[in-house]
Amino acid sequence: MAKSPETEHPQKAIGWAARDNTGTFSPFHFSRRETGADDVTIKILFCGICHSDLHCARNEWGVTNYPIVPGHEIVGTVTKVGNNVSKFKEGDKVGVGVLVASCQKCESCQQGLENYCPNMILTYNSIDRDGTKTYGDNMPLDAGAPLLCAGITVYSPMKYYGMTEPGKHLGVAGLGGLGHVAVKIGKAFGLKVTVISTSPKKESEAISKLGADAFLVSSDPAKVKAAMGTMDYIIDTVSAVHSLAPLLGLLKVNGKLVTVGLPEKPLEVPIFALVGARRLVGGSNIGGMKETQEMLDFCAKHNIAADIELVRMDQINTAIERLAKSDVKYRFVIDVGNSKLQ
Amino acid sequence: MAKSPETEHPQKAIGWAARDNTGTFSPFHFSRRETGADDVTIKILFCGICHSDLHCARNEWGVTNYPIVPGHEIVGTVTKVGNNVSKFKEGDKVGVGVLVASCQKCESCQQGLENYCPNMILTYNSIDRDGTKTYGDNMPLDAGAPLLCAGITVYSPMKYYGMTEPGKHLGVAGLGGLGHVAVKIGKAFGLKVTVISTSPKKESEAISKLGADAFLVSSDPAKVKAAMGTMDYIIDTVSAVHSLAPLLGLLKVNGKLVTVGLPEKPLEVPIFALVGARRLVGGSNIGGMKETQEMLDFCAKHNIAADIELVRMDQINTAIERLAKSDVKYRFVIDVGNSKLQ
Repeated sequence: MAKSPETEHPQKAIGWAARDNTGTFSPFHFSRRETGADDVTIKILFCGICHSDLHCARNEWGVTNYPIVPGHEIVGTVTKVGNNVSKFKEGDKVGVGVLVASCQKCESCQQGLENYCPNMILTYNSIDRDGTKTYGDNMPLDAGAPLLCAGITVYSPMKYYGMTEPGKHLGVAGLGGLGHVAVKIGKAFGLKVTVISTSPKKESEAISKLGADAFLVSSDPAKVKAAMGTMDYIIDTVSAVHSLAPLLGLLKVNGKLVTVGLPEKPLEVPIFALVGARRLVGGSNIGGMKETQEMLDFCAKHNIAADIELVRMDQINTAIERLAKSDVKYRFVIDVGNSKLQ
Repeated sequence: MAKSPETEHPQKAIGWAARDNTGTFSPFHFSRRETGADDVTIKILFCGICHSDLHCARNEWGVTNYPIVPGHEIVGTVTKVGNNVSKFKEGDKVGVGVLVASCQKCESCQQGLENYCPNMILTYNSIDRDGTKTYGDNMPLDAGAPLLCAGITVYSPMKYYGMTEPGKHLGVAGLGGLGHVAVKIGKAFGLKVTVISTSPKKESEAISKLGADAFLVSSDPAKVKAAMGTMDYIIDTVSAVHSLAPLLGLLKVNGKLVTVGLPEKPLEVPIFALVGARRLVGGSNIGGMKETQEMLDFCAKHNIAADIELVRMDQINTAIERLAKSDVKYRFVIDVGNSKLQ
C-alpha cells in the first residue's frame, strides 16, 4: 500500500490544502524527506497569495492534482542545511518563488533561465525528484515575499523586451498584486506610468500612493480614444479572459504588449492591430535564479516592496474569496509564523 | 455635377476595375493629374497579384471603395518627369509598391518608416493629395515586381525582429507569394528553413526548387509533434483565419512568430504558449522606402526573384479565382505592357 503524505518521510510538515475545485482550504498534514546533502530546510514565516494560487486551488487551468497546498511567495529562516550547502547557514533569511528545482543541463538552464527549463519542478502541484509531490515547503519577510513571484514576473519581461528606456510611456493593465509592483518598478526605471483599470475608485491611490503618473479607466470610451497610440509598452497583468484589441490600440508604432496574467482560455488578437503598427504581443514567465536576485537587489536599492494585507492562516478562505473579487490592496500575505496552523 | 473618373484630369489612364464584391474585373477608364513638379509618370509594364488584391476586390476587409483597380507590385518605365525630379529620368526602370506617399513629417516618416505613417497614401483604394482616388498608377520587370510587396513584407520583419542569425531555424508557414520569397531570403541569410504547409504535394518543389531544408505537413500530427520546440523563428504568411496555437508549439524558448498575412478576423492566441516559453507574436507591414531599396539590393546580390506565372490582363478573373484556391506557383504577374487593355 502506498504510504500516506503524512507518513512517507521523516520530517513532519503542516500546510493548508484545497481538496477539490471548491478551493476551500483546511489543515493538511504531510511529510518531507530528511534534509539531504544539497538541501536546506526552512521555517516558513510569510507566504504571499498569488492569483495563480486561486486558479490552481479551483482547478481553473484543469491541471490540479488534489490535495494541493499552494503558495510560491515564501520567506522564512533556515533551520537546517545539508553537508554540501555553502551559500546558506542556520538562521539565514531566505525566500522561495515559483520553482524549487530545474535540470541545470538544458539550454535554458545554462543561460540562467531555469524558469523555461522543461523539467523544472514547481513549488507546488509538481513531482519532486524523490518522487513525492511538492506542497510548498522550501526556502527566503512579509512585504518582500510577493517580490518572489509578482516582482520577478514583471521585472523580467521589462528587461527582456527592452521596456526600460527612461522617459518612455508604460501602461500597466490591472492594478493587483503584479500591477502595483509593475508601477513601482516602472517608476524606478524612469518611465512615465499609466495604470489601465476597470475600477475608477483605484485612481487616487494609484497616483498618490503608488506613484503612477496617470490613470486610464478602460471602460470610458472617450478617455480610451484620447489615449490611443500614446504608449510605448504595456504590461498586461489581467488574469481574466479579455480581448487584447483595446490594449493594442493604446500602443504607438513598434509598441510592445507583454502578457503575464494567465487567463484559462486563448485571447483574441486582431492581426491588423499588430501588422499595421509593427506591434508585438509577448509572454514571459517569472524569471531565473540569477535575475530574481538581480530584481531583489534592484528593489532593495529603490525601496520597492509590495503593499500587503497580512492575514492569518485561518483567514485564508475569506482572503481567497476577496482575491477572486479583486478586493485586496494589493497582495495578501499569510503570517505563517504567527498563525495557529490547526 | 462631380466630374467622372474618366474626365476629371488631363492624363488618360486605363485599368481593370472590380465594381462590387464579386470581385470581377473589367476595363475601366480614368484620368490622372498633369505631371507635377515633383511627379513622375510611368508606363506600367508588369504588375504582380497579391492576396491583398483579392481581399480588397471582394471587400473581405470591409473597407473597399468601388470601383477599385488593385495592384501594388508594379514595375514600368518613366515616361515623363516633373521639374523638381532629380532621381529619375525618362526611360528609367522603376517600381511602385504598396504606398505612393506619406507625410514625411511624423516620427515614423523621420525614421524611414513611411509604411507606419498614419497619413500614408496607398497605391489603390486611397485618396491622393489632389483629392482623387488612387487606382494604381505610379512607378519599378516581371519577376522583380512581387519583391515590392511580397519581398519587403518578409524581409523587413526578419531584420526588425532579429530573425537573421545564421544557423538558426526558420519556419515559413504558407507557401504562396510571400512564403516562397521568405524561403529564398531565409536561405540567403544562412538560416535552416522549414516550410510549414497544408499541401503535401508542394514538398518536392519546396526543397529541390526553392531550396528549403525541410517540409512539414501541418495536418500530420505525428510529424508536427516531432517538430515541437525546434524552431527559432516563424514567418506566418497565411491569409486565411487560423489558430496560432500549432505554430507557437513549434517554437523554442524565446521563439518569435511574425504574422504578415492579414486574415479578416482576430486570431486566437493561447497565452500559456507565449508565457511558458517567452515567445512573442509580432506584426509587420511591408517596409519603408529606404529598407525597400536595401531589400532590392540584397535580392539582386543573392539572385533572388519571385517565381511567377505571367498572365495577360484579360486573364485576370481566372487568375484571381485560381489565387483564391492557392493554385499558383507562386505569384501571378500581369504582363501589362503586352496586354490588350480593352
